[in-house]
Amino acid sequence: MKVILIGATGIIGQAVSQALTGQHEVIPVSRSKGEYPVDLTDKASVQTLFERVAPFDAIICAAGAAKFAPLANLSDDDFQFSLANKLMGQVNVVRVGMDFIGDRGSFTLTSGVLAQQPMPGSAAISLVNAGLEGFVRAAALELPRGIRVNVVSPPWVSETLTAMGQDPSGGMPATQVAQAYVASLDSDCTGEVIAAQAFAVK
Amino acid sequence: MKVILIGATGIIGQAVSQALTGQHEVIPVSRSKGEYPVDLTDKASVQTLFERVAPFDAIICAAGAAKFAPLANLSDDDFQFSLANKLMGQVNVVRVGMDFIGDRGSFTLTSGVLAQQPMPGSAAISLVNAGLEGFVRAAALELPRGIRVNVVSPPWVSETLTAMGQDPSGGMPATQVAQAYVASLDSDCTGEVIAAQAFAVK
Repeated sequence: MKVILIGATGIIGQAVSQALTGQHEVIPVSRSKGEYPVDLTDKASVQTLFERVAPFDAIICAAGAAKFAPLANLSDDDFQFSLANKLMGQVNVVRVGMDFIGDRGSFTLTSGVLAQQPMPGSAAISLVNAGLEGFVRAAALELPRGIRVNVVSPPWVSETLTAMGQDPSGGMPATQVAQAYVASLDSDCTGEVIAAQAFAVK
Repeated sequence: MKVILIGATGIIGQAVSQALTGQHEVIPVSRSKGEYPVDLTDKASVQTLFERVAPFDAIICAAGAAKFAPLANLSDDDFQFSLANKLMGQVNVVRVGMDFIGDRGSFTLTSGVLAQQPMPGSAAISLVNAGLEGFVRAAALELPRGIRVNVVSPPWVSETLTAMGQDPSGGMPATQVAQAYVASLDSDCTGEVIAAQAFAVK
């Protein structure tokens, strides 16, 4: 399959890219690097990307930012940033991409464990992640031509914790998280929230 | 308790008002009627409301609109309307209200069954309802002074189905849905998604 991988240079994206290489043709996309840059917050930029790369069989999005900050400090702009980026950015990948993706193609988006297991500071992120999951459950009912959509919910990723200067042992290695994306791509499931923890190697 | 009831003239709001009358002092609020109008999409309007009514002990919000339409027909404006109204409108009730509400006060917001059980046409509503539930779970961890926040998830309401020209027998009467709001108000729970079905009279 020809797979567009948005967020290809991120911690999860790199691991997904490695997992797919040799199995599929991966088109790496990131915000500023490489042949195919995209600004997730700009629907026209998303459309341009798909016009350039079409035809393709699948899109994996491991990109999208939302603001982590104490509730009392989250500004109107912080909420708007979070809604426009990780939430509507990924929603628009589906809305725009459904006109370009091949029959029986698949979308795999990214939410996160904070949707269901919040922590202090996660109000905007929990909103965005849970909203994305609600969208995916619903959109799956209406996609034409056998097109599927799922969302992977990663836990804290070991490499992310290391980058934050924290103990990585509480996280899941990106190579294991990537298996949830592979499962979404290679399965027949749709409308699912795929908990990456299910793919943990004990 | 002195309870601000936003959406007091709606189908659920009227039932909640009846359920609280005699037990609590209800301040009815709606978009255009009565002494206290509020525009949920305008944070300044929400702030003005709370300044006028303070001090108060609780806020119940049974208001907020989102767009129901086929996914392929949902426009950018439809998503923005839904995000600004039912989602951020209610989020802002908490963000603004937390500075005015009394110690150990409570917020009760409204999502809906489409968050978890979507149907064709519900992509924007499912996103909004699920996002609100994610916000509530997270915000509950950070509210100061013993303040609580919950969200009631109503099923289809009988009177709403009747108003839509559909068979009301598949719905739940508003008087029963109202009991979920009473439970949120009178309990100690916080961060909960309260399924109104739990209060169905068999």
